[in-house]
Amino acid sequence: MTDPFVVVGGDAAGLSAASKCKREDPDREVVVFERGEWVSYAHCGMPYYVKGEVESLADMLSLSPEQISERGIDLRRNHEVVAVNAEEQTVTVEADGEQFEQAYDELLVATGAHAVSDPIDGADLAGAFTIHSMDAAAALRAFLTPPEEFDPDGFGGAGEFVDRELVEAYADREPPESAAIVGGGYVGVEMAEAFSAHDLDVHLFQRPERLLPPFGEAPAERAAEALRNHGVTLHLDTEVDELVGDDGAVAGVVADGERVPVEAAVVGIGIEPNTALLDGTGVELGVSGAVAVDDYGRTNLDGVHAAGDCAEMRHTVTGEPDWVPLGLTANRAGRAVGQTVAGTPTPVGDIAGTAVVKAFEMECGRTGILDHDHAREAGFDPVSETVTAGSRSGYYPGGAETTVTLTADRKTGRLLGGSIAGEDRAAIRIDTLATALDGDATVGEVERLDLAYAPPFSPVWDPILVAAKVLNGTLG
Amino acid sequence: MTDPFVVVGGDAAGLSAASKCKREDPDREVVVFERGEWVSYAHCGMPYYVKGEVESLADMLSLSPEQISERGIDLRRNHEVVAVNAEEQTVTVEADGEQFEQAYDELLVATGAHAVSDPIDGADLAGAFTIHSMDAAAALRAFLTPPEEFDPDGFGGAGEFVDRELVEAYADREPPESAAIVGGGYVGVEMAEAFSAHDLDVHLFQRPERLLPPFGEAPAERAAEALRNHGVTLHLDTEVDELVGDDGAVAGVVADGERVPVEAAVVGIGIEPNTALLDGTGVELGVSGAVAVDDYGRTNLDGVHAAGDCAEMRHTVTGEPDWVPLGLTANRAGRAVGQTVAGTPTPVGDIAGTAVVKAFEMECGRTGILDHDHAREAGFDPVSETVTAGSRSGYYPGGAETTVTLTADRKTGRLLGGSIAGEDRAAIRIDTLATALDGDATVGEVERLDLAYAPPFSPVWDPILVAAKVLNGTLG
Repeated sequence: MTDPFVVVGGDAAGLSAASKCKREDPDREVVVFERGEWVSYAHCGMPYYVKGEVESLADMLSLSPEQISERGIDLRRNHEVVAVNAEEQTVTVEADGEQFEQAYDELLVATGAHAVSDPIDGADLAGAFTIHSMDAAAALRAFLTPPEEFDPDGFGGAGEFVDRELVEAYADREPPESAAIVGGGYVGVEMAEAFSAHDLDVHLFQRPERLLPPFGEAPAERAAEALRNHGVTLHLDTEVDELVGDDGAVAGVVADGERVPVEAAVVGIGIEPNTALLDGTGVELGVSGAVAVDDYGRTNLDGVHAAGDCAEMRHTVTGEPDWVPLGLTANRAGRAVGQTVAGTPTPVGDIAGTAVVKAFEMECGRTGILDHDHAREAGFDPVSETVTAGSRSGYYPGGAETTVTLTADRKTGRLLGGSIAGEDRAAIRIDTLATALDGDATVGEVERLDLAYAPPFSPVWDPILVAAKVLNGTLG
Repeated sequence: MTDPFVVVGGDAAGLSAASKCKREDPDREVVVFERGEWVSYAHCGMPYYVKGEVESLADMLSLSPEQISERGIDLRRNHEVVAVNAEEQTVTVEADGEQFEQAYDELLVATGAHAVSDPIDGADLAGAFTIHSMDAAAALRAFLTPPEEFDPDGFGGAGEFVDRELVEAYADREPPESAAIVGGGYVGVEMAEAFSAHDLDVHLFQRPERLLPPFGEAPAERAAEALRNHGVTLHLDTEVDELVGDDGAVAGVVADGERVPVEAAVVGIGIEPNTALLDGTGVELGVSGAVAVDDYGRTNLDGVHAAGDCAEMRHTVTGEPDWVPLGLTANRAGRAVGQTVAGTPTPVGDIAGTAVVKAFEMECGRTGILDHDHAREAGFDPVSETVTAGSRSGYYPGGAETTVTLTADRKTGRLLGGSIAGEDRAAIRIDTLATALDGDATVGEVERLDLAYAPPFSPVWDPILVAAKVLNGTLG
C-alpha cells in the first residue's frame, strides 16, 4: 500500500490541500499533523474579534476537527512534526512527550509563519500581545472586557480549544484605558480601530515614516488621516526602544527616548516564515527566507511540497519568486497541491500581492509593484501618477473622493501596479487592477476598459480610468 | 483656412469630441450644433432626479453653455442639422426657421438615440412619459410633487432651458397615486424605485418573462424579488395593449386584455439610434441599424465620423460590431474621435456591454456575452454556471448573498461573459469580469486571479472565484 499524503500544519494551506486531495481521491490516506489545538481558523478576523464586531471566537473556525474527520482526513492535533527525513520519506512526530516516525508518499509543509516580536524588549510583559494566535486574541478581548461582563462560556464551539488559564488571568484584570500599537502595518491599523471601539486612548508607533508601507504614499496618508480623525495618536518615523513594565505588566512604551504611559500593547511588526523544521533537510529556501517552490508548489526535494505562509510564490508582474503571505494565496496553493497529489497536476498560480485593509471607514487596496526601487530591480522604468476622483456621479449622493495611484513601465506602457483609497467601495475596485495585471495590460488598455457606469456606483469615468488617462498622458 | 470640425449633437459623445479636439489643437475651429436647448446632461441621473434623490435638475448638467464656450467651442443650440452633403462637405442647418450651409473639414455625427414608444397606443396621453429628455424628467417630477410644494424656481442653473409651459402644466395637476411602468429594462426598474419613493402604487409590465433581459436569469430574479419586497406589482410575460385615457389623461393600462387603473405611466421599452439625418447620404448603417464605424469611429464616407448612442462599436468578445448605447462608450468614443481629428489617431476601444443597475438595494451587473444563442451565433459553445456565495467572510457582519453567473466557451475555456447580483457592493465587482474579458482570460485564469481578501470586503474565495471554480470543474 502507498504511504499516506502527510501534511504538516492544520490551517489554510494544509487543510485546503488535505480536503482537496481527499475529495479528488477518496481512497488516498491523508494525515494532517497540527502542533497546537487550533485548526482551520481565520487569522484575518482576529482584530474584528478583539474589537467585538465578530461576536464569538468560534465564528472564526472554518471547520471543526469533527468536520475535518468527516472528510476522511486523519487529523492529529497536538502533534508536532520535529524532523523531516527526506531520504527515508518519513517525518518524526512528537506527541504527549513521545516520538514516532511517520512514513509519507508525498509531504506538504504548511507550517505557516510566526509574529516577530523579539527586537522589542518587554514584549513578554503581561498586557503585551502579538495578534497571531487565537489564544492571544481571546486573552486580549478578555483583558478589554470589564471583569463583571466577561463570560467564560462565551467562546462557543471554540471553548474546548482555548487556553483558559491565560484567558481567565486576563479576564480578572482591570481593563486598560490606553494602549500602544507597535507597528503600522495591517495588524496595527486594524488594532487601532479595535482598541478605539473599546474607548482606549490609542498610540500607534511606526518606524517608517508612513503607515502601510506596501500600499505606497497616497493610501498611507488617507489611512493616517482616518486614524487621526478617530483620535488615534500616530507616532510615525518613530522607533520603539522597549516596553516597560510595572509589577510584570506593561506600564509604558519608550520610543525615541520618550516614555508614553500605556496599560496594554500590541506588537505587530511583521511575520517570518516557519522554516526551522526544514533546517538540514536539503530543502532550499528562496532569497526571501521562505521555502522555494516551483509552479506546482514542489520544493527541490522529491515528494516534498510547500504552500501557504511558509512558501514563496511567483509574482505576476516580475515573474520572480516573492513572499507575500496572505490568506487567499495559502488557500489557493494548498488546494492546488492537494489536487496535484491526487493525480491532476495543478499550478498554484501567481500572486500580485493584492491586499486590502480598512482604517475605520477608509478602505485601502494595493496590487502589483508600486515601489519604484522594487520596479527598477525587476528591470522596469517605473512612472506613477496619482489622481483623486469621485466614486459616483457628482450629483448622486453618497460618493467619496477616491485616490488612485497607477505605476507603469515607461518603455512598454505595461501596468506594474496600483493602489486605491477612499470611503465608498474603494477597496473592492483593486480587483480590477489585479485582473489587469494578470492580463499583462498596458495603461492604454486600462484606459479603454469597458467598466461599469451608473450614478449610484461610479461616475462615467471611474477613478481607475481617470488615473489611466492621466498616466497615459504622462507616458506620451 | 481649413473648414471647421463640425459636431452634430451636444451631448456626451459630441461634447467629449469637441472638448478633446480643442484641448489638443487649440487653433482648430470646432462648431457644435445641438437641435435642442439642452447640452451635456446626464441621462442616467434622470430616474434619481424624479425620485428626489438628486435635488436639482441643474445638478445633472456636466457643463453649462458658458463653460463650453470658454473652452473655445462654437456651440449653437436650437440649431438642427437637417442634411449632410458629403460630396460638398457641408451640412444644412436649420435655426429660427431659416436654413444655411456649413462647410466642414471633418464631421462627427453624435445624434444619440430616441425612446421608442410608438407601439403603445395612448403614449401621448397627459401623464404618460418617456424618460429620455430633461423636460420629461422635470415634468414628471413636477407631476409627482404636490402643487403647494412645487417651486417654479427650483431648477437651479437649468431653469433657463426647461420647458416651463410643460412643467407648470404638470405642477398644477393633482399628484398621481398609482403608476404603470411599461418595460422592465434599466429605466423601468429605476423608475419603479423612483415612483415608490413617492408612495405610489406601482405596476410594472414586462413583455418578456424576465426583467432586465441582458442581465440573464439570476440577476433578473433577484431584482424581481427586490421590487416585489418593496411593494411593486410585477406583470411579467405580459403585453401592454394600450394606455387608456379619461379626459385626455392616463387613466389605466390595458394588458393582456385586462385593465389596471393608473394615474401616470412611463414607457421605457427601448431606444433606437437617431440615423434619419444620414438617409440618402451613403453613410452605411450596421445590421443593428446604428451607424457602422471602424476602430477610429470613421464611417465609410471620408471625413465623416460617428460616436455615441447612434453608432455601433466592436464587441470585445465576438470581435463583431454591436450596438450597446451606454454612457461611458459615448464619452470614450467621442473623446477618441476628438483626439483623432486633432491629429493623433486614437482607437475608440471595444465594448463588452458592461452595465450595472440597482433595484432598490439589489445591485446587478453584467458584462460580455451571457445569452447562449448569442454566443452560438458568434461561434462559441457556451457553458454557464451560477453560484451564490457570501460577499464577506461569514463571521463578519454586513455581508450578503451574491449570485454570480459565468459563461465560457467549452472548447477553449475562454470567459465569454458574466453577471452578478447582491446587496453588498455587488455591482462594482463586475469590473473584474469586464477586465478579464478584455484580457481574453480563460475561466482557469479567472479562478487563479489574485483578488483582494479581507473580512470586511470579501471572503477568502470571492464569489467570482467560487463561480470560476465551479465552471472550471464543469469544463473539466
